[in-house]
Amino acid sequence: MTDRVVLAYSGGLDTSVAIGWIADATQAEVVAVAVDVGQGGEDLEVIRQRALDCGAVEAYVADARDEFADEYCLPALQANALYMDRYPLVSALSRPVIVKHLVAAAKQHGATTVAHGCTGKGNDQVRFEVGISGLAPGLKCIAPVRDLALTRDKAIDYAEKHNLPIETTKKNPYSIDQNVFGRAVETGFLEDIWNAPIEDLYSYTKDPSRQHDKDEVVITFEAGVPVAIDGEKVTVLQAIQKLNERAGNAGIGRLDMVEDRLVGIKSREVYEAPGAIALITAHQELENVTLERELGRYKRGVEQKWGELTYDGLWFSPLKRSLDAFIASTQEHVSGDIRMTLHGGRAVVTGRRSDTSLYDYNLATYDEGDTFDQSLAKGFIEIHGLSSKIASGRDQRLGHA
Amino acid sequence: MTDRVVLAYSGGLDTSVAIGWIADATQAEVVAVAVDVGQGGEDLEVIRQRALDCGAVEAYVADARDEFADEYCLPALQANALYMDRYPLVSALSRPVIVKHLVAAAKQHGATTVAHGCTGKGNDQVRFEVGISGLAPGLKCIAPVRDLALTRDKAIDYAEKHNLPIETTKKNPYSIDQNVFGRAVETGFLEDIWNAPIEDLYSYTKDPSRQHDKDEVVITFEAGVPVAIDGEKVTVLQAIQKLNERAGNAGIGRLDMVEDRLVGIKSREVYEAPGAIALITAHQELENVTLERELGRYKRGVEQKWGELTYDGLWFSPLKRSLDAFIASTQEHVSGDIRMTLHGGRAVVTGRRSDTSLYDYNLATYDEGDTFDQSLAKGFIEIHGLSSKIASGRDQRLGHA
Amino acid sequence: MTDRVVLAYSGGLDTSVAIGWIADATQAEVVAVAVDVGQGGEDLEVIRQRALDCGAVEAYVADARDEFADEYCLPALQANALYMDRYPLVSALSRPVIVKHLVAAAKQHGATTVAHGCTGKGNDQVRFEVGISGLAPGLKCIAPVRDLALTRDKAIDYAEKHNLPIETTKKNPYSIDQNVFGRAVETGFLEDIWNAPIEDLYSYTKDPSRQHDKDEVVITFEAGVPVAIDGEKVTVLQAIQKLNERAGNAGIGRLDMVEDRLVGIKSREVYEAPGAIALITAHQELENVTLERELGRYKRGVEQKWGELTYDGLWFSPLKRSLDAFIASTQEHVSGDIRMTLHGGRAVVTGRRSDTSLYDYNLATYDEGDTFDQSLAKGFIEIHGLSSKIASGRDQRLGHA
Amino acid sequence: MTDRVVLAYSGGLDTSVAIGWIADATQAEVVAVAVDVGQGGEDLEVIRQRALDCGAVEAYVADARDEFADEYCLPALQANALYMDRYPLVSALSRPVIVKHLVAAAKQHGATTVAHGCTGKGNDQVRFEVGISGLAPGLKCIAPVRDLALTRDKAIDYAEKHNLPIETTKKNPYSIDQNVFGRAVETGFLEDIWNAPIEDLYSYTKDPSRQHDKDEVVITFEAGVPVAIDGEKVTVLQAIQKLNERAGNAGIGRLDMVEDRLVGIKSREVYEAPGAIALITAHQELENVTLERELGRYKRGVEQKWGELTYDGLWFSPLKRSLDAFIASTQEHVSGDIRMTLHGGRAVVTGRRSDTSLYDYNLATYDEGDTFDQSLAKGFIEIHGLSSKIASGRDQRLGHA
Repeated sequence: MTDRVVLAYSGGLDTSVAIGWIADATQAEVVAVAVDVGQGGEDLEVIRQRALDCGAVEAYVADARDEFADEYCLPALQANALYMDRYPLVSALSRPVIVKHLVAAAKQHGATTVAHGCTGKGNDQVRFEVGISGLAPGLKCIAPVRDLALTRDKAIDYAEKHNLPIETTKKNPYSIDQNVFGRAVETGFLEDIWNAPIEDLYSYTKDPSRQHDKDEVVITFEAGVPVAIDGEKVTVLQAIQKLNERAGNAGIGRLDMVEDRLVGIKSREVYEAPGAIALITAHQELENVTLERELGRYKRGVEQKWGELTYDGLWFSPLKRSLDAFIASTQEHVSGDIRMTLHGGRAVVTGRRSDTSLYDYNLATYDEGDTFDQSLAKGFIEIHGLSSKIASGRDQRLGHA
Repeated sequence: MTDRVVLAYSGGLDTSVAIGWIADATQAEVVAVAVDVGQGGEDLEVIRQRALDCGAVEAYVADARDEFADEYCLPALQANALYMDRYPLVSALSRPVIVKHLVAAAKQHGATTVAHGCTGKGNDQVRFEVGISGLAPGLKCIAPVRDLALTRDKAIDYAEKHNLPIETTKKNPYSIDQNVFGRAVETGFLEDIWNAPIEDLYSYTKDPSRQHDKDEVVITFEAGVPVAIDGEKVTVLQAIQKLNERAGNAGIGRLDMVEDRLVGIKSREVYEAPGAIALITAHQELENVTLERELGRYKRGVEQKWGELTYDGLWFSPLKRSLDAFIASTQEHVSGDIRMTLHGGRAVVTGRRSDTSLYDYNLATYDEGDTFDQSLAKGFIEIHGLSSKIASGRDQRLGHA
Repeated sequence: MTDRVVLAYSGGLDTSVAIGWIADATQAEVVAVAVDVGQGGEDLEVIRQRALDCGAVEAYVADARDEFADEYCLPALQANALYMDRYPLVSALSRPVIVKHLVAAAKQHGATTVAHGCTGKGNDQVRFEVGISGLAPGLKCIAPVRDLALTRDKAIDYAEKHNLPIETTKKNPYSIDQNVFGRAVETGFLEDIWNAPIEDLYSYTKDPSRQHDKDEVVITFEAGVPVAIDGEKVTVLQAIQKLNERAGNAGIGRLDMVEDRLVGIKSREVYEAPGAIALITAHQELENVTLERELGRYKRGVEQKWGELTYDGLWFSPLKRSLDAFIASTQEHVSGDIRMTLHGGRAVVTGRRSDTSLYDYNLATYDEGDTFDQSLAKGFIEIHGLSSKIASGRDQRLGHA
Repeated sequence: MTDRVVLAYSGGLDTSVAIGWIADATQAEVVAVAVDVGQGGEDLEVIRQRALDCGAVEAYVADARDEFADEYCLPALQANALYMDRYPLVSALSRPVIVKHLVAAAKQHGATTVAHGCTGKGNDQVRFEVGISGLAPGLKCIAPVRDLALTRDKAIDYAEKHNLPIETTKKNPYSIDQNVFGRAVETGFLEDIWNAPIEDLYSYTKDPSRQHDKDEVVITFEAGVPVAIDGEKVTVLQAIQKLNERAGNAGIGRLDMVEDRLVGIKSREVYEAPGAIALITAHQELENVTLERELGRYKRGVEQKWGELTYDGLWFSPLKRSLDAFIASTQEHVSGDIRMTLHGGRAVVTGRRSDTSLYDYNLATYDEGDTFDQSLAKGFIEIHGLSSKIASGRDQRLGHA
C-alpha cells in the first residue's frame, strides 16, 4: 500500500506546490487538511477543491472555530497569557488545534507522516512537530521548505510548470498569520527595529488616533468564561468576534515588540489582537476582585510559565496539563461584570460588580461603618517585620548596613 | 532629659495637630521632619515654620528629590516594578526614603520614637514601621491616628481650640498621596467599585481623549539608567519630571484598579504616574532587545517578588537587597535609544537602537543574507520535545490521553 | 442560653485546668474535644472522662487516625513536603484535622468560640486560629495560656485547689507533640544550639549506630498512594505505622535543625519521623522514574510553596487548594515498586520498577540496541545554547567577560 | 598554515586514538590538553608524554585543582546545589573549568576547533560545546565518537594498528568520571533500574555499614567559605580533600538515582561525593542559623535554578551570572562553626555557633527571661489569615467548601 502524508494545507502557493513536491520526493500520496481557526480569507470549499486540483488524493476541511475558541483561546484567557508580558500567543494557540486535526486525519487515512509549510528558523515548526509527537509519538514530520529545499522561486517555477490553480505573480510584502484570536505580521522593513510600523500593516484594528466616540461595553464572566456582552449571551467564539470588531474599531490590541524566539534568536513582531486584549484586560480585573491575594500572586508565576510553555510548543506536555489543573481550580469564583471604555487604543476598566467579590466595602471604607479593627495592626506589623528586624539588629551590631 | 519623638510631618491638619497631641500624650518633645519627594504643594519653608508654630521643638526639611529618584525610583524602573502588573509603587517607594530621613533625625536629636500620620488599616503604617525597624531596630513607633485616638473631628477641635495656623474648615473630598513618581487618589464614591472615576480626580494627567497632536520622544538609557531625552542629558529626577509633563499631557499613566492590600483587604485605588509608566514601557522594550532570553524570563519572576516586597514594606530587608544584586547585574548592557509616541493615553514604542543589542538582523531576516542554519532545527525539535514525547508514548500505551 | 466554648483537649495539665479557667473567665460552658491523630499515650476514653471530671459540659473523642493519614499525611507525601528541605511538617499537618473536628463540634454544640492550649510565640496558635477562620469565619478563638494568663504555676495551683484528677508534680523536661506522622521535641538544653541532642530525647526511633541487620522493604504505590508493603496491602495509616516501626528500628528520620518560625524567630527543633521520611524517600524516587522532566522541575517549586503554606497555617486557603489541584494532577502515573534498604539511620533506594516508567532502557543503554539517534545532538546543542552564545558574542565585542 | 584542533585529552584509549583520528579526518594538527581537576589516576606528565607519542603536535597539562575548588565547587557549595535534590553536580562542575583551559589553549595555539571525547547522548557534550560557545563564540566543536564514527572497536583496531602506547585489551566494566568533588559511575547492569549497586562500584567511600567509630568534625565558614576544619586552616581544595577522606571513611555521599538528562532521556546514575555532601550539609545548616527567613525561602528557588543551569551546560550564561550575583550577596554573614558527626553514611549536624547568628535565645526560650511579646500574636494571626478568611466567608456564603 502506498504511504500517505497528511499536509497542513493553507491554500496558498507554498502548500499548494508542496502537494506535488512531497509526492515527488517521497512517492507518497498527499492528504490535504485545512483547518478553519477563524483566519478568514477564501472560502474553505474553494481551498479544498484547490488541494484536489493540485494533486491531493484527499482534501479535508475542518471548521474548528468554536473548538479553537473554547479549548485553546479560553484557557489562554484564564491564564491571562501574555508572552513577555505583551503577546497573547495568537499563532502559538492555533498550532495545537491544527495538530489535533492533522493527527486525526493521519489516523483516519493511515498516514505515517505529517507535513507542514514552516521554515526552519521559526517557532511554528517546533509547535507543529512537538505537538504531533505529543499526540502521536509514532508519526514522522516533514517540512518541505526546510527539509526538501522548496524555496519560493522553486515553488513559482513548479506552479507555473504544472499549471497549478494558484496565483504566483503577486508577492505579498507581508508575511501574515491570522486567526480569530489575532493577527501576526512580519515584513522586510520591520527587520530594521528602528523603523516604525505603518498603518498599512493593520487589518483587525483601525487607527486609534482617528476614533471619535467612546464605546462602553459590559462583559459578563461566569467561572472565568465570558458568557455575555452588554447582557446578550455569547459563546466564547462570539465574545472574541464581537470584541474584535468593537475593540478593533477603537484601535485596541496593536503590539510592536522585539521577541525572543524559541530557536534562540530575537525577532521583530507586529501583532493585532483587539478581542484578546480586551478580554484579558477585563478578566485580569475581575480576578483582582475575586481571587484571594496569595492565590493571585502565585497565579502570576503560573501564568508566565503557562505562556512560555505554549509559546515553546509544549501545549500537549505533562507540565502544561498540570498548570491547566491549577488554573482551572482558580476560576470557580471568577464571575461578574466588568465595564470597560473602548477608546483610542485603550480598553479601560471603569467598573466591576460580582456576587463572588472579595472586595468588602465595610472593611475598605474610610467612612463610618468601617468594620476593620485597627488595633490588630500593631501586632501584625511587629511580627510581619520581625525576621527582617532581627537581621537588621545583627547587621548593625556587626557594623554593616 | 526629656524624651523626643520625631514626627513625619506633612504640613496638613492631622500631623500639625499631632505635634501637640503626641506631646500631651507622651510628655515628649516633638521634632517635625518634612521630606520633599517631589510632592509639590506648599513651600517647604512655610511648612517648616508651621511645625514650629504648632509646637515642634525642632523642624527639619529635607530636599530628597534627587535621592528619591536615584535610589528609589531608579531601582523600581530597573525592576520594571508594577504591583499586580499595574501599579508602579508610587507611595511604597517614597516611604523608605522618608524613613531614612526620620531615622537620621532621630539619631541627630536623640529621639527614642518615630511618629507618623497613618491609620491602622493601610499599607503605609507597615512601610513606615517595618522600614524603621530595618534601619534602627531600637526605635519605637507611634501613630497618633491609630494609637492615640486622634480622629479627624478631634483634630479639628484641637486645632481650633489651640488656634493652630492650619485650615480646618475645608474638607478635601479626596485623600491624596503624591510624589514625583506619581499620585494616588482615594475618595468615597470610588469605594463603590462599579463607579467610574471622574475627570476631576486627576492632576498629573490630562484627559487622554482630548489630546490633539502626537508627541514623539526618544529616551536614551545607559546601563539601565535614563540619561537623555531627545538627546538632551538629564538626571533621573529630570527624566521623570520631563516625562511627567509630556506623558501627562498625553493622558498616559492613569490607573484604576482593585488592589490587594498588605493588611489583607481589597481596596479601590486610582493612580496617575505618567513619567513612571512611560519610562517603564521604554525600559522593558530595551530589555527585550538587550537581555538574553533566559535571563529575561527569570527576571520577570524577580521583578514580581521585588514589587511585592516593596509594596509590603520590606524595602530594607535582606531578600530585597539580594534581589537588588540580581537586578543590578542584569543592567550592564541595557543601553540604547527607545523612540516612543505619546498619544491618547498610550506610550507606544515605535523604534529601538542599541550598540548592545542582541537582535541580529542577519539571523532574523527572511531576506537574503540569512545566516541562520535551518538544518539545526530538526535535532533541536526532537530533543526539545523528547521528554514530553516519551511521556506521551507512555500515556498512550496505558490508554490515557 | 449560656455561651459555649469548644476546647481542643489533650488530657494534660494545661488543658484540664483550662476547662475551669475558661469557664471562670467567660461564664461559658466548655465542651472538650480530643482528637486521636495517632499520638498514642493514654486511652481516649480515660481522657474523655477526665474532661468531664474537670468540669466540661460535654466531652467528645474522635478517632481521626485514618482521616489524618488519608487527607493530611497523604497530600504531604505526594507533595514530598519537607519544610526547609528537612522537616515533614508533623505538627503542621495535625492542626487542620483537629481544627475540622473542633469546628464540627462547635456547630453541633452551638459554640461561638474555640479554645486551644497554645502559647503566643509558636506556630500552632496560628495554625489553629487561621484554620478555624478558614472553615468557620464567624467563630472566635481564645488561648488561655496566651490570652487569660494561665501560666504553668497558676495551672498547678488551680489543679490542686480544685482537686482536679491530673498529675501536677511531675515536670516533664521535654515539650512534646506527636502523632502518627512523627514527633517533635523541645527542651531547655537544646535552646543552646551548640548542644547536641541526647539519646533520651527519642521515642519513635532507635539509635541508628546500634542496629545490626539490614532491613529490606518494597513499597508499592498506585497513583501516588502507598498501597502495599512487601506485597501486603495496606491503608495509608498502616503504611505509616508499619514503616514507623521498621524505619524506626533502623534509626531513620531523626532531625535536628534550626527552623524559621512563622512568628519571625528562629528556634531549635528535634524531630523523629521514621515512616514519613521512608515514604517520602521512596515516593521521590518513584517520581524520578515516572514524572516527565519539566513537570518534575516545576513541581519542586510547588512542593516548597505547599510546605510553606502548610507550615504557615494556611491549609484551608485558596492557594493551598489550587496547589493541591496541581499536585493531584501529577500523581496519575506515580505507580510502581520501590525497594529500599533500611539501615543505620538511612532509607536507601536500591531498586525501582514501574509499568508507568519513563525510563527507557533502549534509549538509555550504552550497550548494543541503543535507539537514541546521536545525530540529533548537534542541532540541539547549537540552538539550546544560541541565545547565550549571541550574548557572549556581544559581550566579547564590547570587551566584557 | 595548517589548521589546529585542541583536544580535551584524558590519557585513555578513546582520546588517545582521537589524536590521530581527528588528524586523519580533518588534516589538522592536534594539540592535546589535559586538565587536573583532582581526578587522580596516572601522573599528568605521563599523560602529556602519551599525547605526544600518539601524535599530538603539542601537549599541555594544567593543574586546575585549586581553580576548580575555588571558582566552581565553592559557588556550588554556596548554592547548596543538588540537582533533583540529590546530585552535587560533580561532572557538570568540571566541564566549564576544562572548557576554560581548552579555550585558552585554542587562543594560544591558534586553533579554530575544539574536540572532546563525549558521545552524542550524554550531558557532557552539551556542557563542552555550549561552554565553548559561551567563552569563544567563534570556535567550532567536534566530537570524534559522535561526529567521526569513532567506535570503541575501531579505536582498539586503530591503537593496535598504529602501535599506540595505550592499553586496549582490558575493558573496564565501569564508565567513570571523577574529580575532587566526586565520582560518577555507570555500568551495564545498573541499566536495569531494579538492580542494586554493588560494593565494587565505589572508590571514594567505604561501606557505611562496616564503620566502627564515630568521627566528629567541626567545619568553620567565613562568609560562606569553608576556612578551617577542626580549627586548622584549609583552602577550599583542602576542605574538600580532607572531608573526602573523613566522610568517605564513614560511607557518606553515596547516591543512586534515576536522573533526567538534558537530552530528554532518563538514566540511572551512581555517584559518590563524600566531601561535597558533608560540606553542603554543614553549609545548609549554617544558613538556617544566619539567613533571614524570606531570604532563605527565596534562595531555595534560586538554588534549584542554579543547579539546573549548571547541569544543563549553561555555566557561562547571562542568567547563571546574575544568579551568582544573588547568591554572592547572601553569603556575607554565613560565618561560624558547624559540628557534625560522620558515621554510618550520614553527616549529622549536632551543633552550630556563629557570631552572625540570627537565632536569639532570649526570643526563643521557653524559660524565664523570654523577651518575646506574646500579645502581638493576636493581631498578627488575624491579619495574616485575613485575605483567606474573607475568601472562606465568600465560599461559605455561596455554599462552596
